[in-house]
Amino acid sequence: MTLLEPTTLAPSTVVPSYVRDAWWSPAEGAKTQSVLDASTGAEVAKVSAEGLDLAAVVEHARTVGQASLGELTFHQRALLLKQLGQYLSGVKEELYELSASTGATKRDSMVDIDGGIGVLFTLSSKGRREMPNSQVYVDGDVEALSRDGSFSGQHIYTRIPGVACQINAFNFPVWGMLEKFAPAFIAGVPSIVKPATPTGYLTEAIVRHMLASGILPAGSLQFVSGSARDLIDHLDYRDLVGFTGSASTARALKSHPNIVHGGVRFTSETDSLNAAILGPDAVAGTPEFDAYVASVVTEMTSKAGQKCTSIRRVIVPAGMRDEVVAAVTERVAKRVSIGDPRTEGVTMGPLASIDQRGEVLSSAARLLDGGGRIVMGSLDAPDGTDPAGAFVGPLLLAFDDAESAAVHEIEAFGPVASIIEYDTLDHAVALAALGGGSLVATVATHDPEVARALVLGIAAHHGRVLMLDRDDARTSTGHGSPVPHLVHGGPGRAGGSEELGGIRSVLHHMQRTAIQGSPDMLTAITGEWHTGAAVRTGTHPFRKSLAELRVGDQVASGLRTVTLADISAFAESTGDKFYAHTDPVAAEANPFFPGIVAHGYLLLSWAAGLFVDAAPGPVLANSGLERLRFVTPVAAGDSIRVTLTAKRITPRETEEYGEVRWDAVLHNQNDEIVATYDVLTLVAKV
Amino acid sequence: MTLLEPTTLAPSTVVPSYVRDAWWSPAEGAKTQSVLDASTGAEVAKVSAEGLDLAAVVEHARTVGQASLGELTFHQRALLLKQLGQYLSGVKEELYELSASTGATKRDSMVDIDGGIGVLFTLSSKGRREMPNSQVYVDGDVEALSRDGSFSGQHIYTRIPGVACQINAFNFPVWGMLEKFAPAFIAGVPSIVKPATPTGYLTEAIVRHMLASGILPAGSLQFVSGSARDLIDHLDYRDLVGFTGSASTARALKSHPNIVHGGVRFTSETDSLNAAILGPDAVAGTPEFDAYVASVVTEMTSKAGQKCTSIRRVIVPAGMRDEVVAAVTERVAKRVSIGDPRTEGVTMGPLASIDQRGEVLSSAARLLDGGGRIVMGSLDAPDGTDPAGAFVGPLLLAFDDAESAAVHEIEAFGPVASIIEYDTLDHAVALAALGGGSLVATVATHDPEVARALVLGIAAHHGRVLMLDRDDARTSTGHGSPVPHLVHGGPGRAGGSEELGGIRSVLHHMQRTAIQGSPDMLTAITGEWHTGAAVRTGTHPFRKSLAELRVGDQVASGLRTVTLADISAFAESTGDKFYAHTDPVAAEANPFFPGIVAHGYLLLSWAAGLFVDAAPGPVLANSGLERLRFVTPVAAGDSIRVTLTAKRITPRETEEYGEVRWDAVLHNQNDEIVATYDVLTLVAKV
Repeated sequence: MTLLEPTTLAPSTVVPSYVRDAWWSPAEGAKTQSVLDASTGAEVAKVSAEGLDLAAVVEHARTVGQASLGELTFHQRALLLKQLGQYLSGVKEELYELSASTGATKRDSMVDIDGGIGVLFTLSSKGRREMPNSQVYVDGDVEALSRDGSFSGQHIYTRIPGVACQINAFNFPVWGMLEKFAPAFIAGVPSIVKPATPTGYLTEAIVRHMLASGILPAGSLQFVSGSARDLIDHLDYRDLVGFTGSASTARALKSHPNIVHGGVRFTSETDSLNAAILGPDAVAGTPEFDAYVASVVTEMTSKAGQKCTSIRRVIVPAGMRDEVVAAVTERVAKRVSIGDPRTEGVTMGPLASIDQRGEVLSSAARLLDGGGRIVMGSLDAPDGTDPAGAFVGPLLLAFDDAESAAVHEIEAFGPVASIIEYDTLDHAVALAALGGGSLVATVATHDPEVARALVLGIAAHHGRVLMLDRDDARTSTGHGSPVPHLVHGGPGRAGGSEELGGIRSVLHHMQRTAIQGSPDMLTAITGEWHTGAAVRTGTHPFRKSLAELRVGDQVASGLRTVTLADISAFAESTGDKFYAHTDPVAAEANPFFPGIVAHGYLLLSWAAGLFVDAAPGPVLANSGLERLRFVTPVAAGDSIRVTLTAKRITPRETEEYGEVRWDAVLHNQNDEIVATYDVLTLVAKV
Repeated sequence: MTLLEPTTLAPSTVVPSYVRDAWWSPAEGAKTQSVLDASTGAEVAKVSAEGLDLAAVVEHARTVGQASLGELTFHQRALLLKQLGQYLSGVKEELYELSASTGATKRDSMVDIDGGIGVLFTLSSKGRREMPNSQVYVDGDVEALSRDGSFSGQHIYTRIPGVACQINAFNFPVWGMLEKFAPAFIAGVPSIVKPATPTGYLTEAIVRHMLASGILPAGSLQFVSGSARDLIDHLDYRDLVGFTGSASTARALKSHPNIVHGGVRFTSETDSLNAAILGPDAVAGTPEFDAYVASVVTEMTSKAGQKCTSIRRVIVPAGMRDEVVAAVTERVAKRVSIGDPRTEGVTMGPLASIDQRGEVLSSAARLLDGGGRIVMGSLDAPDGTDPAGAFVGPLLLAFDDAESAAVHEIEAFGPVASIIEYDTLDHAVALAALGGGSLVATVATHDPEVARALVLGIAAHHGRVLMLDRDDARTSTGHGSPVPHLVHGGPGRAGGSEELGGIRSVLHHMQRTAIQGSPDMLTAITGEWHTGAAVRTGTHPFRKSLAELRVGDQVASGLRTVTLADISAFAESTGDKFYAHTDPVAAEANPFFPGIVAHGYLLLSWAAGLFVDAAPGPVLANSGLERLRFVTPVAAGDSIRVTLTAKRITPRETEEYGEVRWDAVLHNQNDEIVATYDVLTLVAKV
């Protein structure tokens, strides 16, 4: 653990890197790059990584980072993330101030800072609920590969044996870092964070707090401020690069020999020309029309439109363009006030840098050349803004030719969108697909048929689709906001990969391996009991706390005979008089039953009677049941017995108990399987 | 549907292509390549694709192929694969004859031909058991994104909107084609098959039979015989390339601008230096030692060692090398007879071509240069083999330096392996990892601790690990045989991707998309009822056949009060006298219960009594139950009610019924949720 006092960076200091568990700054006289305040042009910081030994940084992660994270289970790592989230929640006010220098309004900063901390909480919670408390994640069901059960297959995930290099974009210096760091951390993979230069000073500030928390194991996080051009030179197939940024940089990285030849895992998430489609039913006056217009304005103006997920293509039914333009214009006039975000009342800040302003204005000019005409806003600097700041006002362009290449290819990464019209739903789908793969699209409609046609038509071209209607307009998390529960990414132009998506994001940092072997060996590898593996009988397993219980601990009952009277009594007491249990003629006519059969729930209830050890003890509750299948019907005169075996044991890090999953099998008097299921219980630790 | 008479290719005919739903041959005078019999050197066929319009082939798949496959559901496509498998089983004898020309023995041909047909059956069965009978695959649970349930997320998979281009290796001309075609087909994605030239005539023969079956929808399968160098020029992010072959070709393809820049999905499966590790416990005389030696010999000699999965690195404990070499040598002497596979008694054929022989001998020479010495076999042609044939005998090399680069880098793609020794388990893991990522490794041990250390140590460097011991030695499917149930592929040198793995292979041909919206809209998109979506009451849903039943059909019961007498009677009749139901003091001491509570199974049983419509009707059986969670305990005096809603309807293509999954929710008298679960039933179609 590393304990450091967080300090605020003095203006014009060179932003340090944090490598090999120590802060590092370039030597005196190193060539630095200056970073300016987005609104005022004043220097905020200098950046340089001249002289940094990146090979040693990678090696530190692969050795010290892998070792320290390897001592922890998924749950333990996930719990550290929760603690980290709690710690950072206490210091976030400081970060807001620095965030304003990047051009972010208070609301923009919340999306970045609170949103980033939110990822820690969500993934922490999902990691502990959806993963085992161990280091091996079992994927899918066991696959029977021999008739006698002596040879089976099971997929597992184990962490990649290298480092996750996270090359982030300038627009979300906090969220962009935490959303990649968190899943790598849960997986047990150390991170090297490389922020974008224009806003990396804010990333440095939060990294400083993360380290000061003392929560992070040695080597689990390193931070490189400045150019890291040769980072990929030091990577191989054990490592992963997660890139966010422009498509052109992604291409350059993806061509690196270590990625093409060396097997470095490369995922990229690049800006895309995201669409918002207005359904034909969503005419002016409907809640969908209003929600759509609000969404377009939000996406144009939040973060000054500098979001990879922003709406770039406003696709509306033929004839509705003018109404939409008018409504967007009206809302912008009412709601949007541009200026230095530190000024009271400002709702939209500048772009992140003068360079970005140049890029956006040049892209807008290309859009105009490509057939667009301005229907809202202008290319001029907004009234009353500082000429030294990177201000651009909201700009909406209309294209008469919906297929204009410019609309679907040129992205102005700022408050700029284009509006086009479609004729039919198929046409709308085709237009959305012209984006060549996007992160997200919005479909605004209250008509399920329209939704189905549009969403299923565009789904394969998108990583996420948001359906906006009157039912979710208020509660929607919004077109532009990835949520940690759902995947973020998209095919084609969007980069072709995925981030987030709950524990999917953790699994992205792990290798899936098919394991084949005998039940005993599969049990040894997975830590979960496999049917056919060794069992331990003797003391009833309900008498064992988690301290004593082991997978394979088993209780097997004797036979109990079911009579017709039992079935009738059960029907009477429960009210379940389904004909298969009460009507001999109808039951016999049923294709699956020999005649009257016992209720499935009778069998389950009796099985519990056969396997429980009733006296007070460590077993606290039956919390659920999974995977029940009834295999062979039980008629009057048949008997059943149950075998219950501890299958998976999941102690809770923060509770005095854990979950025990039991394998339950019911057999009849002929040793045929009657039913199989998993019983879930809560069992005390001691 | 295309109906064609299968004909056998005349010797020295140019192997035709099948494109745009018609056979195609190059124009007279086109430049052709000659393909020779592996054993005799006689010409078998000529190959040329000169003048083939690959852009039109791609376009045909994207239009006609997508459209015809798009009319079918997952189950319908999967069922066609089963029918195809049945058809091909009837014609496979013909294929064996042609297969012998490739150098394959009868046993080799079975692996290729029967193994390929087996993939059709397995994936057909898994597709119908594990996927919905629709066109949208729902991935994972719904994710709550708002407190009031009005906005949620759900991941779905839909097919990629392009074509799957399958570039296959020469060693498995049938299996290699079918294992890629089958999952693409179930996904609904048309295939373009490009076989390797030396054995493509065998692929052509089976393609001809597949087409003659009349089973394949228009455009779903195209076959390109000959060079298809510019195929990738015509692809974009909608398409997928599945490559199998050498690492060098994989690199060349992976550098294509359409892959680096254009987002073409590229998966590759390349030869790797697969290891087999003998555990320290598996000394001579143990069943594990014998199984290990047998496996090494099988992998060296089956397909004459021309398998991407063959064992190349024989890794044994220090001091055991001589014993292993002696045992391997003895077994080879006893079991292996090299020659023309058409000759009686031959157990190992030639390599596939004279070129391949040249490659293997040159790689073997490099291994010798790299520090190896021959401990079994020789570089000379085996006695009695035809000099015009591509014969190479089994060759085992020993390296004193286990870390020799040659062992871990040079692959002789034939009956060639190297043996090295390790000191400790960590050393064995490190040696296996020096392969830089492999398809598969075998670990032979009967010690669970050894298995755990070795397997978890090497897992992240492998796509598959086979654990060999006395329990599975007889039933194991073998080190070298991918099975359709488990993923095939591996990181790093093995190509970095996955094939097969049951329905994972189908999902590889689909795009995952996060869908966000209100319950009604999520229901419209997924076809599955989401909590909060519209429901239909009135006629009891148990009175509706599949023809009438719709998702959202619901029955809601009134309240029924539970008394202490009910709980006691249930304990008495079932025998489940767990203290929480019988002992007021112990129950109250339990951290979760207010005092005595009703059995979970009582609640389930009563719920059935509350929701069933008992009279004979279309509901045939309760087949199972899933996802049960008990949320709020029910004490004496509390009441429960149940709401049952049709959630997912899966008609079976080959049965008169289907599966209906019902969403069940129990509430108490305070409208608190008591339990949630899914009830599975079988319901008649009419």
